[in-house]
Amino acid sequence: MLAGDGIGPEIMTEARKVLEVVNASQNLGLELDEALVGGAAIDAFGTALPDDTFAKCADAEAILLGAVGGPKWDTLPPADRPEKAGLLEIRKRLDLFGNLRPAILYPQLAGASSLKPELVAGLDILIVRELTGGIYFGQPRGIRELENGEREGYNTYVYNESQIRRIAKVAFELAQKRGGRLCSVDKANVLEVTMLWREVVQDMAKDYPDVELSHMYVDNAAMQLVRAPKQFDVVVTGNMFGDILSDAAAMLTGSIGMLPSASLDVNGRGMYEPCHGSAPDIAGQGIANPLATILSVAMMLRYSCAEPQAAQLIEDAVSRVLDQGLRTADIYSEGCRKVSTSEMGDAVVAAL
Amino acid sequence: MLAGDGIGPEIMTEARKVLEVVNASQNLGLELDEALVGGAAIDAFGTALPDDTFAKCADAEAILLGAVGGPKWDTLPPADRPEKAGLLEIRKRLDLFGNLRPAILYPQLAGASSLKPELVAGLDILIVRELTGGIYFGQPRGIRELENGEREGYNTYVYNESQIRRIAKVAFELAQKRGGRLCSVDKANVLEVTMLWREVVQDMAKDYPDVELSHMYVDNAAMQLVRAPKQFDVVVTGNMFGDILSDAAAMLTGSIGMLPSASLDVNGRGMYEPCHGSAPDIAGQGIANPLATILSVAMMLRYSCAEPQAAQLIEDAVSRVLDQGLRTADIYSEGCRKVSTSEMGDAVVAAL
Ligand SMILES: CC(C)[C@H](C(=O)O)[C@@H](O)C(=O)O
Ligand SMILES: CC(C)[C@H](C(=O)O)[C@@H](O)C(=O)O
Repeated sequence: MLAGDGIGPEIMTEARKVLEVVNASQNLGLELDEALVGGAAIDAFGTALPDDTFAKCADAEAILLGAVGGPKWDTLPPADRPEKAGLLEIRKRLDLFGNLRPAILYPQLAGASSLKPELVAGLDILIVRELTGGIYFGQPRGIRELENGEREGYNTYVYNESQIRRIAKVAFELAQKRGGRLCSVDKANVLEVTMLWREVVQDMAKDYPDVELSHMYVDNAAMQLVRAPKQFDVVVTGNMFGDILSDAAAMLTGSIGMLPSASLDVNGRGMYEPCHGSAPDIAGQGIANPLATILSVAMMLRYSCAEPQAAQLIEDAVSRVLDQGLRTADIYSEGCRKVSTSEMGDAVVAAL
Repeated sequence: MLAGDGIGPEIMTEARKVLEVVNASQNLGLELDEALVGGAAIDAFGTALPDDTFAKCADAEAILLGAVGGPKWDTLPPADRPEKAGLLEIRKRLDLFGNLRPAILYPQLAGASSLKPELVAGLDILIVRELTGGIYFGQPRGIRELENGEREGYNTYVYNESQIRRIAKVAFELAQKRGGRLCSVDKANVLEVTMLWREVVQDMAKDYPDVELSHMYVDNAAMQLVRAPKQFDVVVTGNMFGDILSDAAAMLTGSIGMLPSASLDVNGRGMYEPCHGSAPDIAGQGIANPLATILSVAMMLRYSCAEPQAAQLIEDAVSRVLDQGLRTADIYSEGCRKVSTSEMGDAVVAAL
């Protein structure tokens, strides 16, 4: 359990409460351990990912992460900041290439979306984002001085066939288990790297005759998410486009404080974290929504610990708490009861 | 006038009607000429940008473009397709680096947005996108074979200081003339090229004390556009992020068929085109909305021809036609009168 920064420790406390209850009641036998990461680790050890923290992560069946980063560390060189030296480093070193980001509209929160109700009712999209390649990690990269004395910044957007194939496989298989539709997003009319992406994904389609594959340019995908998001089932795309589209999709639901995510390696070992960030502006006030982290616990039990029943118990408990009208500030609407971070955690425990 | 492909010729016919009326009535003395570009030029001359077409463009004060591309040419090698060999080639060769993409909600079309009315009423954002640099044009690029026999695709995302400075200057100056707020969008927590971008833009802020500058990561910008788009005034960003965000922003208005765009060089020479594409699925049916192209004529008169009055006449005429309840299919709603492409063009002429 890596609580991290900002609201991280607050939401992690609630997630731990919930996990401990289920661990005991369901005899899961999970051993929980904690470690510092991100800004908290920089403050304590001078580095965003101390060796001890990484060793614990590498040893664990699964990692639960709160969130990292905040203004306090924004003046450090980018390569040393919590995001890059902490989060991206764990993803890369553990090869957590398969990032699953659901965008689900909870029926109890139907009114919270900024979109018209009829466009989002029942929304259930899964964005599968490649997480350890693409322009995030491509070499060469940097800022260099040109002959005329001015500087130039450069990054490299790169994917090879195996990288594309392994993320597409994850997406095809998830589409088989869901609505049977997969949309691959690229910019194949401009970028060579995504021409290869499209070709490889297209080529794999014959192995998944039960999946209906389509391709869409990223600019159009951004438009379609806003116009008619329910047209999507599973979306697969690279690291950068996935970063942008998954945030837009999550926000469409109006309940980004509710959305968990998973980042998996080839063996199903994974890191689980809320879709939202460390929200430094509200940290320490006890008003953050712990449900995305609590639902990340459920996702973790399902995908990495093979405990689907325990996962379901948590998800049902969250649903009951919403039915009771309990809401943290971010999802509050008239007629509901506004509760604090810990009251929400306690309510889930009670519902369990 | 480059009509291009798909609905291009249909909407261009209406735009030409309108321009001819204003040209005569206001004694603008503009000489109009036409040329083939995109798929139409491939069919006629085997290349998306014939020398003769480019010579005419290079000679003109301003270029009006319909749209290019369509399934017919999608099997060509990407480098020869209408988009890359036609559109991107004109942008690059004429150095049309400053792309202005307004996202405006027309009060008459308030209901057409997929967002809740209160979130978009009065929406008026201007996205300033760098158009001739970044990953669209960066070298090296391609698909290569690796030692192990598999292929790898790669592109280079690159900006130097002068490229950043000249687009930021356009954006700062436009912000001065508008609401005085500029938001620069980057991914400076991950990509070095956008760290330089942020630094250069930040550094210029001191020369524009009347502009309130902010910075936002692209994933957050995509979320904020969906959540609360009215927080933005002018947004400036690179080619790729601008492509994605401007399409999302345009779609927010529900009237992408209404939105013009300008692509300017350092001297104000420009290419003007609707924000929408060639829409091959509805080409030839006489149902496309010509208003984005007609409003592109207005934008052209204002920015490249120094004829703001003539521009205003066209914009007022469009507004009157909307007031009259005339709507093409894409913006139709109950209680309005559905009209064809040419009826809409004729109505604007009549209103003039
Ligand atoms: C914090 C940042 C580096 C990270 C990313 O861009 O991947 C975040 O936005 C995310 O999506 O998890
Ligand atoms: C057609 C395509 C190459 C183009 C782009 O990506 O620039 C289009 O999407 C646009 O935004 O004008």
